[in-house]
Amino acid sequence: MRVGELSKATGVPVPTIKYYLREGLLPAGELSSPNQASYDDSHVRRLRLIRALIELAQVPVAQVKDILETLDADKIPLHEQIGHAHRALTPRRKPAASDEARSAATAQVTELISRRGWSVDPDAPALATLIETVAALHTLGQDSLVSFLDAYADAVERFTELEIEAVTTSPTRDQLAESVVIGTILGETLISSLRLLAQESISAKRWGTR
Amino acid sequence: MRVGELSKATGVPVPTIKYYLREGLLPAGELSSPNQASYDDSHVRRLRLIRALIELAQVPVAQVKDILETLDADKIPLHEQIGHAHRALTPRRKPAASDEARSAATAQVTELISRRGWSVDPDAPALATLIETVAALHTLGQDSLVSFLDAYADAVERFTELEIEAVTTSPTRDQLAESVVIGTILGETLISSLRLLAQESISAKRWGTR
Repeated sequence: MRVGELSKATGVPVPTIKYYLREGLLPAGELSSPNQASYDDSHVRRLRLIRALIELAQVPVAQVKDILETLDADKIPLHEQIGHAHRALTPRRKPAASDEARSAATAQVTELISRRGWSVDPDAPALATLIETVAALHTLGQDSLVSFLDAYADAVERFTELEIEAVTTSPTRDQLAESVVIGTILGETLISSLRLLAQESISAKRWGTR
Repeated sequence: MRVGELSKATGVPVPTIKYYLREGLLPAGELSSPNQASYDDSHVRRLRLIRALIELAQVPVAQVKDILETLDADKIPLHEQIGHAHRALTPRRKPAASDEARSAATAQVTELISRRGWSVDPDAPALATLIETVAALHTLGQDSLVSFLDAYADAVERFTELEIEAVTTSPTRDQLAESVVIGTILGETLISSLRLLAQESISAKRWGTR
């Protein structure tokens, strides 16, 4: 199909498609004449994924590019590919905590991970984020939130097996990689909106006037 | 204390503090002379909160301002204040799904909410996000992720009561509002990093080489 049909199939305006092509987010079409490229279903699929990442999950364009590159890295082992996707998905955060707060938080998080029997790469970016967040919560005087770590870990363990299971049933390696990316990012959007709705519901029942 | 001491107490550089003052994120200090302002513990506290929102939760500066305004709105009922904080925390997303995908998703989400017995404002921004995300997942062919909605809701219900409970034990109304903001945002960072670590752990056990 031509770029105009690709635009119609996805609802993405032609200038936006051209921008994604220039930025390397969308692979070039096949040249059917010197001035015309032709696109296929893989472009429709990729374009929908790009839109979901940008519009729904609010991932910045530069990061979307990193994430899409992990999709095309299909020669590496599955566990490494999941690691790559996680790394691309976890923004690097500037460490803001004091050294003292950070070492207390590190001890607490290390203990949690060993208590849960989790096997975690010491370089996992999510580990650094968790430690910085715990340190910040202590500094902000929000120790009660830190005391929920085990409750949060309990809850997370309830669905993680399911998530990994679902990913592994993807029929092809390409679709598997896509499922990892979509599952990680949009799964998080599902969880966070459900959490806000549950909070609102409890708050409405306790203090609402309607 | 003077601005230099405020900087030392929080680790935030003086020019950054001045930027927050100009942008209205940090309330002005008390003028002790025509050229000198004096700051107190409330400024230290607010500055730490601003840094946690910007550095850790990666909230854009303009949105931080909206969020902080809800903190100072202490005359409104608690349930409304939680609603305000949620609204400020949930970025407006451009609707990307087709009308057809959205109406199917709306039916599915409405059914879920009634099945859980949740009381949810139809204008809650998290509701729109949830519907758009479910619609996007259908469009992307990720129906297995949609089938986890109840598993996610089960998990979320396990800690939401605890979270609301913790917030209500705050000694003052100011601290309560602060706990709502910190709990909502940094609680989400805790949950999302724990989820990535749990995924990594299961993936390492299944397919890891080490």
